[in-house]
Amino acid sequence: MANVHIVHAHPESRSFCAAMAREATRVRTLRGDDVSFSDHYALDFDPVVRASEFVDRSDNDYLVYPLEQRHAREHHALAPDVQRELDALLISDTLILVFPLYWFSVPALIKGWFDRCFMPGALYGGKRLYDRGGMTGKRAAVGITLGGREHMFGPQGIHGDLAGGMLRHLLQGTLGYVGYQVIEPFFAWHVPYCSDAERARMLAQWCVLVETLNEQPHIPMPRLGDYDEVLRPLSRPLMP
Amino acid sequence: MANVHIVHAHPESRSFCAAMAREATRVRTLRGDDVSFSDHYALDFDPVVRASEFVDRSDNDYLVYPLEQRHAREHHALAPDVQRELDALLISDTLILVFPLYWFSVPALIKGWFDRCFMPGALYGGKRLYDRGGMTGKRAAVGITLGGREHMFGPQGIHGDLAGGMLRHLLQGTLGYVGYQVIEPFFAWHVPYCSDAERARMLAQWCVLVETLNEQPHIPMPRLGDYDEVLRPLSRPLMP
Repeated sequence: MANVHIVHAHPESRSFCAAMAREATRVRTLRGDDVSFSDHYALDFDPVVRASEFVDRSDNDYLVYPLEQRHAREHHALAPDVQRELDALLISDTLILVFPLYWFSVPALIKGWFDRCFMPGALYGGKRLYDRGGMTGKRAAVGITLGGREHMFGPQGIHGDLAGGMLRHLLQGTLGYVGYQVIEPFFAWHVPYCSDAERARMLAQWCVLVETLNEQPHIPMPRLGDYDEVLRPLSRPLMP
Repeated sequence: MANVHIVHAHPESRSFCAAMAREATRVRTLRGDDVSFSDHYALDFDPVVRASEFVDRSDNDYLVYPLEQRHAREHHALAPDVQRELDALLISDTLILVFPLYWFSVPALIKGWFDRCFMPGALYGGKRLYDRGGMTGKRAAVGITLGGREHMFGPQGIHGDLAGGMLRHLLQGTLGYVGYQVIEPFFAWHVPYCSDAERARMLAQWCVLVETLNEQPHIPMPRLGDYDEVLRPLSRPLMP
């Protein structure tokens, strides 16, 4: 049995994207997993980093957000919405994000969930990153809906690579950074324009992926052992 | 004389990042430009795409956000905060973004500014993208503060390339996509840890960049002429 946290944000609750999120919940619950589900629209989550979220600051004069995050966590004074998400992140071994691609990235609601809930000290900090991050040993999967078509991406595509290029900030810079093993993302291409049959086929594929996350390949990530104490690359001898 | 729109979001108004935004405003105003400045914290900008921002929807039953954006714009019924930003974007020939790097991307406040204000029909749509986007002939510059150090980036760096890798979604996928000529970004490295003298030096460098945007090189972008009517790459004959 696994503990799964599913995070979702789409402004239309009857969208294909919302169906993907619900199906992920259904499939993992049926499997016997412990599943928590955060729909950021239903929760009315506030994605904005704000001084006012800290009731008792370590420095009332000058805001350094990550320092106040650490201070609030140490004093059990995190904002309730952040505490709830942090608890779900820490207890779960699998994170599943489901969202529509906006500007080759996550919607602001999910961006702000990272900004506020990916907590220094708990998820990362100092040299606790990548294979030494706080979430090592856990898996993250991403399901994305988009209007674009597959031929627009890749080395010859007009937008270049999607998973390795446009989404590097998310897959490596956020999920990989805190230590998750990041599964190759699932893309529901061309969703607004495709047939019901095609949508049904994609939804079934997504369900298979969600059910078999443990068997899916991970995206390679940097390893701290290849860098020195200030994260400079270790020099390697040239091949003779 | 140029028309410049400056967009900024940092939760601490005395931060180095806020100083960069204010200095950009000062430098361009002194030069005689027409400058508008949006500090998203001061404006309390809402970064979340919401059905409720449309008072008169084209489809009350099912939300397709970009279709409602187009409908609202055609009926002069955009939300006032969006209309204000759209007007500033359309009237300006230069856009300057100043923000702290959060998770190798913009803060949610700026992400949501793209999600809500980068308007289909006006800034992009159909095959109006890259060198045929709505903002062709305009310049965009980006000033970013971060805790990381320069040696953590680049081909050998632990995080890989910053401008061409982690920030591709912003520089190409957002600013380049709508047609801006995108200047190589300015990075204020290691800001929380460096000396006042080093910060003064970086601020002076930033001011020079802001003053000389017209002379700065652009990041290369895809050209629509290299792709067919469904944006498939045109096949090129192999070299003999």
